[in-house]
Amino acid sequence: MWKKPTFIIDTDKVVQNIDLMLRKADENNTILRPHFKTHQSAKIGKLFRERGISNIAVSSVSMARFFASDGWKDITIAFPLNLCEIDEMNELGSTITLNLLVESTYSIKFLADHIAFHAGIFIKIDTGYHRTGIDAKNLKDMEAILLLIESSEHLHFKGFLVHAGHTYQARSTNEVRDIGTSSIAQLQTLKSMFADDYPQLITSFGDTPSCSIMEDLSGIDELRPGNFVYYDVMQMHIGSCNADQIAVAVACPVVAIHKDRNEMVVYGGAVHLSKEYLPNEDGSKNYGLMVRLHDNGWSEPIQGANVSSLSQEHGIVRIPDSHINKFKPGDVIGILPVHSCLTANLLKEDMYFL
Amino acid sequence: MWKKPTFIIDTDKVVQNIDLMLRKADENNTILRPHFKTHQSAKIGKLFRERGISNIAVSSVSMARFFASDGWKDITIAFPLNLCEIDEMNELGSTITLNLLVESTYSIKFLADHIAFHAGIFIKIDTGYHRTGIDAKNLKDMEAILLLIESSEHLHFKGFLVHAGHTYQARSTNEVRDIGTSSIAQLQTLKSMFADDYPQLITSFGDTPSCSIMEDLSGIDELRPGNFVYYDVMQMHIGSCNADQIAVAVACPVVAIHKDRNEMVVYGGAVHLSKEYLPNEDGSKNYGLMVRLHDNGWSEPIQGANVSSLSQEHGIVRIPDSHINKFKPGDVIGILPVHSCLTANLLKEDMYFL
Repeated sequence: MWKKPTFIIDTDKVVQNIDLMLRKADENNTILRPHFKTHQSAKIGKLFRERGISNIAVSSVSMARFFASDGWKDITIAFPLNLCEIDEMNELGSTITLNLLVESTYSIKFLADHIAFHAGIFIKIDTGYHRTGIDAKNLKDMEAILLLIESSEHLHFKGFLVHAGHTYQARSTNEVRDIGTSSIAQLQTLKSMFADDYPQLITSFGDTPSCSIMEDLSGIDELRPGNFVYYDVMQMHIGSCNADQIAVAVACPVVAIHKDRNEMVVYGGAVHLSKEYLPNEDGSKNYGLMVRLHDNGWSEPIQGANVSSLSQEHGIVRIPDSHINKFKPGDVIGILPVHSCLTANLLKEDMYFL
Repeated sequence: MWKKPTFIIDTDKVVQNIDLMLRKADENNTILRPHFKTHQSAKIGKLFRERGISNIAVSSVSMARFFASDGWKDITIAFPLNLCEIDEMNELGSTITLNLLVESTYSIKFLADHIAFHAGIFIKIDTGYHRTGIDAKNLKDMEAILLLIESSEHLHFKGFLVHAGHTYQARSTNEVRDIGTSSIAQLQTLKSMFADDYPQLITSFGDTPSCSIMEDLSGIDELRPGNFVYYDVMQMHIGSCNADQIAVAVACPVVAIHKDRNEMVVYGGAVHLSKEYLPNEDGSKNYGLMVRLHDNGWSEPIQGANVSSLSQEHGIVRIPDSHINKFKPGDVIGILPVHSCLTANLLKEDMYFL
């Protein structure tokens, strides 16, 4: 059925994952603006649209153009403004509602000088991840940006946006909760400080671990998780989902078996799965968990089996004695990816919907 | 000039790299069958063809079809036979000379039963890498495979093939030489043992570290390196090349600067560079070296600067005090990739030839 590495999507699980997150957004009286970088798929987008979603986030101008051409009319590019693509943003912004992200006076000045459409501007706030954004206590820089926004008739302050990506380094669900709670509190403080001048301002928050693990997300106006649509082994490891919620597996043909060292070689390498890994307890690397495929889905992960190394096209699966004799070249196994966003990006041309 | 992550290829350096390897093959009286998985580009293929190359290696049936459609007539799929694609191989094998790789009686039996064209068969030998192949001392399995090859009028024994990929773990050029010398010796032993029955058999050997570092490759009939066409930071680290021979850089727009922590944020992440890394001496990770781009190429790597972490679309560049003030959002820097094969695969749609 699958002759080469193929990204299999269990549509029922995707729908369950979307419905669960939508319910959580509803319960918290907040809007879900899903991040579409994870799937980059018009077909998955349609599943969101059918459930009433009309606002989305993406992480590049290219992705914004792709989804705009697919009919999406309100898009936030949740990535620090790329000044090099001002022409592309101007073109796109004339046809849809486009929200942009800034974190420096340099970028907002450039934007004020070059923008040709009415853009919603989010100020990117750093609540502890330290990848991008203005420190949540640095009011001076925020005020300088707001002044420049005010000076342009094309720029409109939308609010404060956070990606609490440090939840990915958390060692327990309690730590995820702590990071999420702290980030939300910092956003709420900012909102209350600026609410008099900007009564319409919103707070935008989202990363899959916080949005999955925390029940109470109240006080936030917009949630922006992305990965939850598929989940993956990393999210399972963090505690965002269980194995049964992982909605994607990569079909990989078995090409060789080395019983003496408990290894199978599969056609499925770094160009299919990506080199994202999790450390095993014994110090070895886990590039994905192994499942058995059947016509309508796949099994639970096989205990003690995982992808232990990857070359460009080869994957090495470490497999216990109890299973090594069950496979032969020409069989096709499934691999649950460590990081589904990267795997989905690699296999964009080789997707299969169950 | 470059608005988003773009794979820039310095054609002059590519040609120098090809010419150097061709000269080495000539001096050793061996044939160069370059591995095209690294570039997967018809345009780079043309540079090889113009220099007299007519035989190539690839790592999948899909790649073999791509290059066959581009006029290549003699292709070895240097990857354990994927039984699932027998129909595709039968179709392709009716139009070009197609050589296949086996390492088990199970696969060769299947092939004997299903093959519809005259295929050259290499037996994959393991000289110590332990990824795939039959142990070089395991004559019993080789003989069993040869017997099955003999039983089919479509199968023709071509010889023994090795990929000494353990050179990538070598800690010195001397260690690379030791691994290469040992692997070549093992191949020569096999050749002499089977030469009476198969006087036409050839030995095929190749990995970029051995082929770059060793001067004496005599006694081998065919060399199959691939990465040397571009080289990369990993090869520089191993000692296969110097920085000046690296023929590719990824153009990445600067989107944010955080002077307080000596970091720049660039548009250029795991979906552009891949998550391949090298460990720095201080335990941090190096996902690529930073260069300054100019119209005709790029500078030497900037001392003390490297990509220190990657998200899906973000790259974080650690940059010393001496350089942090030289950049602003909207500038475009270059990143020398750690593993050019993976980066080339990710940026197939965004290539630029100097």
